[in-house]
Amino acid sequence: MLTLDKVFNAQTVLKNIIRETNLVRAYGVADKCELYLKPENLQITGSFKVRGSAYKIAMLSDEEKQKGVIACSAGNHAQGVALAATKNGIKSLICLPDTAPISKVEATKGYGADVCLVEGCYDDAYKKALELKEKEGYTFVHPFDDENVIAGQGTIALEVLNELDDVDAIVVPVGGGGLISGIAYTVKQIRPSVKIYGVQVAGAPSMYNSIKDGEIECLQSVSTIADGIAVKQPGENTYKFVREYVDEIALVSDDEVASAILTLIEKQKMIAEGAGAAAVAAVMFDKFNLKGKKVVAIVSGGNIDVTSLSRVIERGLMKSGRSSSLLLELMDKPGQLKDVSRIIADCGGNVTSVHHERAGSTESVNGCYLRIKMETRNYEHVIEIKKALQSEGFKIVE
Amino acid sequence: MLTLDKVFNAQTVLKNIIRETNLVRAYGVADKCELYLKPENLQITGSFKVRGSAYKIAMLSDEEKQKGVIACSAGNHAQGVALAATKNGIKSLICLPDTAPISKVEATKGYGADVCLVEGCYDDAYKKALELKEKEGYTFVHPFDDENVIAGQGTIALEVLNELDDVDAIVVPVGGGGLISGIAYTVKQIRPSVKIYGVQVAGAPSMYNSIKDGEIECLQSVSTIADGIAVKQPGENTYKFVREYVDEIALVSDDEVASAILTLIEKQKMIAEGAGAAAVAAVMFDKFNLKGKKVVAIVSGGNIDVTSLSRVIERGLMKSGRSSSLLLELMDKPGQLKDVSRIIADCGGNVTSVHHERAGSTESVNGCYLRIKMETRNYEHVIEIKKALQSEGFKIVE
Repeated sequence: MLTLDKVFNAQTVLKNIIRETNLVRAYGVADKCELYLKPENLQITGSFKVRGSAYKIAMLSDEEKQKGVIACSAGNHAQGVALAATKNGIKSLICLPDTAPISKVEATKGYGADVCLVEGCYDDAYKKALELKEKEGYTFVHPFDDENVIAGQGTIALEVLNELDDVDAIVVPVGGGGLISGIAYTVKQIRPSVKIYGVQVAGAPSMYNSIKDGEIECLQSVSTIADGIAVKQPGENTYKFVREYVDEIALVSDDEVASAILTLIEKQKMIAEGAGAAAVAAVMFDKFNLKGKKVVAIVSGGNIDVTSLSRVIERGLMKSGRSSSLLLELMDKPGQLKDVSRIIADCGGNVTSVHHERAGSTESVNGCYLRIKMETRNYEHVIEIKKALQSEGFKIVE
Repeated sequence: MLTLDKVFNAQTVLKNIIRETNLVRAYGVADKCELYLKPENLQITGSFKVRGSAYKIAMLSDEEKQKGVIACSAGNHAQGVALAATKNGIKSLICLPDTAPISKVEATKGYGADVCLVEGCYDDAYKKALELKEKEGYTFVHPFDDENVIAGQGTIALEVLNELDDVDAIVVPVGGGGLISGIAYTVKQIRPSVKIYGVQVAGAPSMYNSIKDGEIECLQSVSTIADGIAVKQPGENTYKFVREYVDEIALVSDDEVASAILTLIEKQKMIAEGAGAAAVAAVMFDKFNLKGKKVVAIVSGGNIDVTSLSRVIERGLMKSGRSSSLLLELMDKPGQLKDVSRIIADCGGNVTSVHHERAGSTESVNGCYLRIKMETRNYEHVIEIKKALQSEGFKIVE
């Protein structure tokens, strides 16, 4: 059974393994509340996950340690287990679907784990991991539904309360529910008045639905840029903790998450992954009643693939109207591009790319399309530019 | 004259205006030395510049404060002056060339400055600023060649020495030279054995050339992604300070800077602008003899335009061989795309985009080009894929 003693014990055990991340006061992110970030993206391995797995592994018997551990994950849990095992001087084997991004596979190996690539999806890798556990006697380290893992994540709450003892609310991303279980349990034992809010993404609302319907549910599929919390089914333990200790759960959209990632980059010069920005997104887009409160948002991780980072930035810029794209239909005659450029420049837009193509499907044989990308100030600015173009006779297709 | 007292005085004056940024131990960035980052990208306004301008402004007479200040900058200096003036309750006017990015103009306004957009380039804006200074009696806040500004930047050195008293070397980006003058002067007064190394970019080597040739030189033009240190000519004061107190200056390339930005994102989850990553680039690419030393690299700022961030990431990925682009010439017959995809997949490459075009300039009328972008592990991996394609008869154009 989870006890507060276990969480305090975890804090002692983790002292020389993890970083105690300091709260960062976030200006310009949310205007209604006093927002602090708990930057677990700056944690070693780039995510809070190492706390839970390191405590779990430290608590193993000598015999279990001798045999090593196994886990199944394409992400932060894999890296947490790998590093925690290496620091404890034991072997770790991580099963990954062979579709996992190269960068994650390399990172996991880099922390000292052996990697077993399994053909298929996550479920196939999971089956393989259980098979190897039986056969070789490894200990399986569950990513969230394990009380020692949950106790490890709970150490975050101790740090928050220690640093900001008059905090009013803590906002936490929810995937399988290990992080929020640890935080909610710990906080409610020590200071029950502090509100604990959970955040899931609309594309993976497993805990949200389960709590709403009063029983554990399993999603058919999940789809979100916040891959770190794309979990189909809550754990049995975590479901119980959330039901008992969490005040409210809300959903955010992928666009809101992208916008939060962008805001963290611009205002805090900090990289968060999708899951890591979910709590910030919930605060930015007013999912909870936080007006005038002292709020801590957990930035749970920062392991975003840099190749997807570019796409997320683009999406965030689009959403805030600071980058926009126009498709114009124009007659294929000289001078049109010059006119378009002039109109946009006069409105203060900054053209960043132009793609000009003579195409088959326009109304006229002489017609062509012009795809223009621009930097703009905001949505109103985009509308102003569109109006100016239309008033000079240009047809805007999209 | 600059004195150590002034730097200590600046530290006291700045106490309630700036953040004291804590050193961050950087793992996985440089393997030969023990590297710490001084994250001035996390400073308010996103750059160290606010230190110098805030101290300069605080030292103005009441009469000068009454009239307000003026500055000319498209970047961090503008934001520093704007915020410092606002915090001191005085007016600021910033002259900017009208080609400045929208985001910088908005940020400067956001810190409370009035903005005067001047047609032309930086030099035109500078002329306009001097004109307005004469006419209206504003005090001009120079971005670097001013002893109070230099004293303000010197406070960074006090913080570094206080936090890491056995530091061996401090690596500092150099533009006009205000930052390194303040740091070098302060460190050499207190602990002369600490080495001070300066870093410029190859596209803007004004201080580097001037020191090498023994006199102040003015570059015809500058070109670099590190716009924060793209300065044509060192100041008279800063030139003297650098000549007297700096141990060595080296140059880094734009590609090395891009690579450092990418590394800071991936390993430290931290955003640096080009200038801000220059010192880290110099450490990563062994520009100084730092083996076995305790080294602090100043990450001077984080105000990179998110629209250029995507481009920098792409460049950094290319440089490290983790993203690559192939142009294949193939016959325009069915099945070729399938074959290419199979070969790349068998080698473990991950295709992210394909652009297929029938083009005029190929050798054969039936020929066409295939532009493929892929995620790869490293350079060796790219070569392996190229060889596999060639061995099945595909012609690689680039």
